[in-house]
Amino acid sequence: MDPADRTAPTELDDPAYRAAVVDLLGVLAYGELSAFERLVSDAGSAPSVLDKVSLSRMAVAEFHHFERLRERLQELGVDPERAMEPFRSAIDGFHRSTAPSSWLEGLVKAYVGDGIGQDFYTEIAQYLDPETRELVIDVMGDLGHSAFVVDRVRAAIAADPGVAGRLALWGRRLVGEALSQAQRAAAERDSLDALFLGSQSRPGIGLGGVGVIFQRIIERHAARMKSLGLAP
Amino acid sequence: MDPADRTAPTELDDPAYRAAVVDLLGVLAYGELSAFERLVSDAGSAPSVLDKVSLSRMAVAEFHHFERLRERLQELGVDPERAMEPFRSAIDGFHRSTAPSSWLEGLVKAYVGDGIGQDFYTEIAQYLDPETRELVIDVMGDLGHSAFVVDRVRAAIAADPGVAGRLALWGRRLVGEALSQAQRAAAERDSLDALFLGSQSRPGIGLGGVGVIFQRIIERHAARMKSLGLAP
Repeated sequence: MDPADRTAPTELDDPAYRAAVVDLLGVLAYGELSAFERLVSDAGSAPSVLDKVSLSRMAVAEFHHFERLRERLQELGVDPERAMEPFRSAIDGFHRSTAPSSWLEGLVKAYVGDGIGQDFYTEIAQYLDPETRELVIDVMGDLGHSAFVVDRVRAAIAADPGVAGRLALWGRRLVGEALSQAQRAAAERDSLDALFLGSQSRPGIGLGGVGVIFQRIIERHAARMKSLGLAP
Repeated sequence: MDPADRTAPTELDDPAYRAAVVDLLGVLAYGELSAFERLVSDAGSAPSVLDKVSLSRMAVAEFHHFERLRERLQELGVDPERAMEPFRSAIDGFHRSTAPSSWLEGLVKAYVGDGIGQDFYTEIAQYLDPETRELVIDVMGDLGHSAFVVDRVRAAIAADPGVAGRLALWGRRLVGEALSQAQRAAAERDSLDALFLGSQSRPGIGLGGVGVIFQRIIERHAARMKSLGLAP
């Protein structure tokens, strides 16, 4: 039986679960808003107007996701700004510590960083009520922009193979910083315990689940690095 | 008789007129793309997440306008990047020389600067073929975001009346820089002569028309400054 089938929408009446959902939507919303800002800023160093437009288009898609998450928080009677607040320092910290120093670093960050986020939240979504799950999966869906990044990075490596080593190191640093900030944010939010433990009507992620999720995220990250032509 | 009624879509078969339309769409497209970037960058200094979101929403609307102009250029068989190229240096120069040093300066620039652009292109639109006219009027339409800027600027002046004098000076500098860059760009593009002179089937703007247009733009600029609580 799919664990998701055991979760009913009435789950949201459980205050502990509801708090976890609000936290999840809050961190996703602030993540999307930050990704939007960061991508537009990276687009400023694009080598051509067409590249700038491609990256800006990715940014605008993230903003529309942010708007959907914000609307859902309002539907739940929550002030979106308050829901995002607990995650600002971790997300701002991540972006501060991983400010790209070049156009290519920005592209790799957009693809690898967003990819890990997508994988993580899509895994978590399986433990949510159907409505929240659908929203999370929707806003985390691949926007089809990855082909652009893969194309540009592979072309840069073909033109100068030395680029590959530096970008591979960069990719590893991104993962390290993301994990460190995610741990910090999670440690501060008890609400996520509700997802970990579950309830009578809703399966928890559990320690085994966490292991499986991390294993899959690491495998998919390695596949993305490979598709860029980089050693994971 | 409305001058616009005398313009037929077949006008686009006239190479001189077509070149003028391509230039017009090119300058508008690059202007929207730059406005998008600049607004998102200004949003970074917003005092709250809600203000940041409001300004980002204005930015995203400008990006969608950019996309429509880009699509129209492609329909006309023109490479959008090439059409924008002649106007990059003037528009980049304008933004470089008017980089806001505060959140409020950014808001005034968004409202006053975009307002002048909207007035100008909406006036020019009357001398275009119906399809181009409709597109220009659409992408130059008020996005309904002005109320946000007016509200924030008036509140800031109420809290500290000294702000009004500094922002009024800023408003005048914006107009001066915009005119100087517009003159520079226009002087380099002969194509715009086609709009100025007109043809048998299409009225030109003419020297009288230019005077009337400028008069109206100045009046509307003064009204906008007044609505912000600033001396024009």
